[in-house]
Amino acid sequence: MRILADENIPLADAFFASLGELCRVPGRALAPAVLKDADVLLVRSVTQVDRPLLEGSKVRFVGTCTIGTDHLDLDYLRERHIAFASAPGCNARAVVDYVLSSLLVLAERRGVALRERRYGVVGCGAVGGLLVALLKALGCSVWQCDPPRQAAEGGEFVHLDKILAECDVISLHTPLNASTRHLIGANQLAQMRPHTWLINSSRGAVVDNLALLTAREDLALVLDVWEGEPQVCTELAARCTIATPHIAGYSLDGRLRGTAQIYQALCEHLGLAPRVQLQALLPAPWLAGLHLHGNCPPDWALATLCRAVYDVRRDDAAFRLSLRGNALERRAAFDALRKHYPERREISSLAVRAQAEVSAELAQVLAALGVAYKKA
Amino acid sequence: MRILADENIPLADAFFASLGELCRVPGRALAPAVLKDADVLLVRSVTQVDRPLLEGSKVRFVGTCTIGTDHLDLDYLRERHIAFASAPGCNARAVVDYVLSSLLVLAERRGVALRERRYGVVGCGAVGGLLVALLKALGCSVWQCDPPRQAAEGGEFVHLDKILAECDVISLHTPLNASTRHLIGANQLAQMRPHTWLINSSRGAVVDNLALLTAREDLALVLDVWEGEPQVCTELAARCTIATPHIAGYSLDGRLRGTAQIYQALCEHLGLAPRVQLQALLPAPWLAGLHLHGNCPPDWALATLCRAVYDVRRDDAAFRLSLRGNALERRAAFDALRKHYPERREISSLAVRAQAEVSAELAQVLAALGVAYKKA
Ligand SMILES: NC(=O)c1ccc[n+]([C@@H]2O[C@H](COP(=O)([O-])OP(=O)(O)OC[C@H]3O[C@@H](n4cnc5c(N)ncnc54)[C@H](O)[C@@H]3O)[C@@H](O)[C@H]2O)c1
Ligand SMILES: NC(=O)c1ccc[n+]([C@@H]2O[C@H](COP(=O)([O-])OP(=O)(O)OC[C@H]3O[C@@H](n4cnc5c(N)ncnc54)[C@H](O)[C@@H]3O)[C@@H](O)[C@H]2O)c1
Repeated sequence: MRILADENIPLADAFFASLGELCRVPGRALAPAVLKDADVLLVRSVTQVDRPLLEGSKVRFVGTCTIGTDHLDLDYLRERHIAFASAPGCNARAVVDYVLSSLLVLAERRGVALRERRYGVVGCGAVGGLLVALLKALGCSVWQCDPPRQAAEGGEFVHLDKILAECDVISLHTPLNASTRHLIGANQLAQMRPHTWLINSSRGAVVDNLALLTAREDLALVLDVWEGEPQVCTELAARCTIATPHIAGYSLDGRLRGTAQIYQALCEHLGLAPRVQLQALLPAPWLAGLHLHGNCPPDWALATLCRAVYDVRRDDAAFRLSLRGNALERRAAFDALRKHYPERREISSLAVRAQAEVSAELAQVLAALGVAYKKA
Repeated sequence: MRILADENIPLADAFFASLGELCRVPGRALAPAVLKDADVLLVRSVTQVDRPLLEGSKVRFVGTCTIGTDHLDLDYLRERHIAFASAPGCNARAVVDYVLSSLLVLAERRGVALRERRYGVVGCGAVGGLLVALLKALGCSVWQCDPPRQAAEGGEFVHLDKILAECDVISLHTPLNASTRHLIGANQLAQMRPHTWLINSSRGAVVDNLALLTAREDLALVLDVWEGEPQVCTELAARCTIATPHIAGYSLDGRLRGTAQIYQALCEHLGLAPRVQLQALLPAPWLAGLHLHGNCPPDWALATLCRAVYDVRRDDAAFRLSLRGNALERRAAFDALRKHYPERREISSLAVRAQAEVSAELAQVLAALGVAYKKA
């Protein structure tokens, strides 16, 4: 079996070399001639996978190490009975780390505890669902809005209007489509409670950015995504408590998990048991763990663990520095900050050693974060 | 021997009970009648120690668990051959942690590495001397200005003018006296290099606060101390990158070290070998240690270790919230923030476990911070 893979897919060798003959090429060089003898094609979002690329090839499986599939012509793949897989949710945990870090900054600045706030999560798929689970595990009050899931499953969902009227924190996690474009506009902003925290790490246009510019001063904004990015309105960025260049999901763990998910899908397609484990391939993190006292205050532990791994203020500072250039320089800087993003791990990669008996409250925080712990 | 101690001196029992009969009273209740049979008097800054208090008593030793001695009538004590001791430098390490944390915030915001800057330390006593040692150990270029030490010792000191003209960071650590009041005024501010960082954690009036208000916008200000505190000019605070309510030295370790230093002085006075060790009495910190990879980038390690123990942005946030009230409320809040200061440990209390071989650069950072490490 011949596997053709974009050379920028991390850990491709470790995962795929044992399944067949692996050949790595630049993503933009993937052309019909190169594909001729390939049985499996592994791509990133830079490769358009459609009839012009695949016609005449013997490719039976296409894998993309991305959560989206916009660059795949799914109708064509189905028509030709070519199996395909993407990596949904691979970076969900990274986005949740981003939201948690932002919440901690806001809580510190406002002098409130995270548990005192009511959270509204809009869009409860891979990212939103994980965020809901974290907040509930931390003992917070969380309301969920997801009309598609509500229609399919029924259950504990509420209308967006109820979230606008009654939540102190609103975090957006929908895809961008006709029903979600400007889901939050001038009308919705006006309905929000005083001092609401609005967090958008989904897609820029889910919020009407122009309406944000003239929104009430009391709203606190956290924006990772921007209408028209990589062009960013500097006035809007200046208005934000936290502003970052679409990096919420950029953990190393998330990128490697993307490869692992495609590997698993390919194994399933081939009827093989997966033998390579992501856990064994992840490089040792710079910060492997913390040694805590079992009786430390749980809110302090939450903030300390999160910030030791990821503090969003680092990315906020670098982004604001980049906004000093002219429009062309800013565009280039937006892409450069994403391309040369520093290595970032996920909070759940930590291991905690606890001195003395771990209090029930601390155990709850560690469990919520997915952090392993053992007695020192 | 009868030892009379202010009840707010921490760990007084653990240190002094074995030396004699220890009696603890409220600091403000220390009056001649209470002192009658005491041989040793241990106070904090709230007690005025002078002839009216001591006349007729048999006190032979006065200890104050503070770095200052303004509340002791030293001439009277000398005249009566009463021995006395204070706790110079007991909280120097805490102030250095504060300065380091502020430097890390500024470096992140300005997108520079700490090593790229030239530092000018003005006043090189207990605090300034420790800061110079830290910065040098980190490989930074540091210039020192301390005319009294220069006169006494000669050596590597420079004039303030040279620091103003050539340093990128200026940190003030002089006492407040006639020669240092408004040491930094409009003239000095005008001489500073563009984008200089000015840090004052000494005494408010060492800098002319009015001049700061109209100083060049490019200067970055970190102020822990304020002319006329607890009254603080909110406009000046708003102008600061970091603003805090005179808490730079407020570590738990520093407070307890104050008691330990007085204990040592008393032992020496009595001709006894000190038997109680501070290290054995310090409570276990919430964060006992971190587990790092030996090959992690040293700048990342420096920031991670410092922030995990103390991040000045916590105190900055709480102080800014307190500045929203009216003048009376703000005064009260300033004192309240100091009185109810959260438990804070020192960076050097950390223990690091290192996975794999520790790089020379990481070893240098750990040594500079005074952090112990061993292989995992
Ligand atoms: N900033 C980043 O770095 C980053 C990283 C990962 C994902 N994302 C973005 O985050 C969003 C969520 O990603 P995901 O992986 O969780 O997607 P997902 O498809 O798993 O979940 C999306 C959820 O939104 C729900 N939804 C659809 N329309 C809705 C509406 N009108 N109101 C409320 N809910 C609605 C869907 O039913 C689904 O449950 C996407 O826009 C994705 O592109 C951004
Ligand atoms: N913010 C806080 O919480 C906090 C905590 C501790 C100390 N402090 C203050 O920090 C300052 C330094 O404290 P310390 O314990 O290091 O004092 P210290 O007496 O040990 O050192 C002061 C140094 O300043 C030098 N000096 C005197 N006049 C000078 C001048 N005109 N120019 C330059 N140097 C001069 C002295 O020679 C001495 O070396 C003091 O003002 C102290 O009150 C503040």
